[in-house]
Amino acid sequence: MTLFPDMCETVLNESIIGRARKKGVLDIHTHQIRDYTKNRQKQVDDYPYGGGMGMVMTAQPIADCFRAVCEMAGTRPRLIYMSPQGQVLTQKKARDLAKLPAICILCGHYEGVDQRVIDAFVDEEISIGDYVVTGGELPALVLIDCIARMVPGVLSDEQCFTEESHYSGLLEYPHYTRPAEWEGRAVPEILLTGNHAKIAQWRREQALKRTYSLRPDLLEHADLSVSDLEFLENLKSGDCKT
Amino acid sequence: MTLFPDMCETVLNESIIGRARKKGVLDIHTHQIRDYTKNRQKQVDDYPYGGGMGMVMTAQPIADCFRAVCEMAGTRPRLIYMSPQGQVLTQKKARDLAKLPAICILCGHYEGVDQRVIDAFVDEEISIGDYVVTGGELPALVLIDCIARMVPGVLSDEQCFTEESHYSGLLEYPHYTRPAEWEGRAVPEILLTGNHAKIAQWRREQALKRTYSLRPDLLEHADLSVSDLEFLENLKSGDCKT
Repeated sequence: MTLFPDMCETVLNESIIGRARKKGVLDIHTHQIRDYTKNRQKQVDDYPYGGGMGMVMTAQPIADCFRAVCEMAGTRPRLIYMSPQGQVLTQKKARDLAKLPAICILCGHYEGVDQRVIDAFVDEEISIGDYVVTGGELPALVLIDCIARMVPGVLSDEQCFTEESHYSGLLEYPHYTRPAEWEGRAVPEILLTGNHAKIAQWRREQALKRTYSLRPDLLEHADLSVSDLEFLENLKSGDCKT
Repeated sequence: MTLFPDMCETVLNESIIGRARKKGVLDIHTHQIRDYTKNRQKQVDDYPYGGGMGMVMTAQPIADCFRAVCEMAGTRPRLIYMSPQGQVLTQKKARDLAKLPAICILCGHYEGVDQRVIDAFVDEEISIGDYVVTGGELPALVLIDCIARMVPGVLSDEQCFTEESHYSGLLEYPHYTRPAEWEGRAVPEILLTGNHAKIAQWRREQALKRTYSLRPDLLEHADLSVSDLEFLENLKSGDCKT
């Protein structure tokens, strides 16, 4: 539910999401909130009670739009409002949402949305991070992308997402492709050996190293083996010596 | 720098960013990385060294695209790579970036980008959050939106962004607009009194309450007055009694 369905459609027709929609693996609809206004000017916002800057989206068109969505869907989907007030999105949260049969996302714009329609209908508020953006559209598109990738059939091979950053709770290892030497920079030799076990070990260690140096906070909740923990211990004692 | 410049343009022509570009307050250009390939098929990716799922973007077209951008800009803009490996975006980070004369954003796609072009050119990696999305395009659009809002002249009134969530480090107070009663739900009476001082106090307290109950972690770094701290103390002791 948005005031910018065309912009959203453009993004949702690209790349992996676009292909999944065409294949019928994902069923995504955009709904123009403005179509549900009851005033002649099709105005969707009004001045805030109590004064202040900016405009506030009125409750009625949003409520009626959601009722129409429920009717079209033949069910009451979980209603998510993209909002800086929400819980911050994580991969785990997206995984949980990917299991639901249907969700509906409300994108606010302008200064915000009348609190009463949030109180009346919204099941959950989600934020994509601690920063301010113009409307809920980009956050909603981020949420949809993130969820869609975990819906079976959307990625060509299920392995695709299980190796990626934040899926296992670690940052990803570095990637290299041809040529073997580019502008004087060589690919790490190990990757050219064809020794799959050693390559896998090197990649795991690179992922651990990166996470340790860039985002040590992630290690607390990461899925670590005994040898991962030993490797990290060695990293830490290496730090102490220097 | 992206493989999806048209999609990015669609988003960047909407709403506040679109108007700021038309007014000449923001100068944003999208660059198609594929235009800088040197192979007949205009292929931008290749298999990863060492095996594994997915394709990796090759270094050469990205490097040449960036060199062309530097030439067009007449300067070497700070190069930011949108990546889950990056530091997580915050409002403070966006504020710092808004002060730079120019930035260039690299959007990866597929499994990632050859590490050597990152090592050679990228000044900074930024992540919009701890979750996986398909490419760097949506994260780049989020970053641009977030930065652009703090560029003078983009918002109609500078006050607009200073009251918003995360700007002062607190969640926002709730908004209400007409009608005064909607589907049996009334606007809080205080907002109808016209007493601006009391309304301002009520809003501040609502913001403090929300932040305390939904995101207490934000209070650590928020800009709090003595009366804010007193209000929070009362909230906490209220909790203890129940």
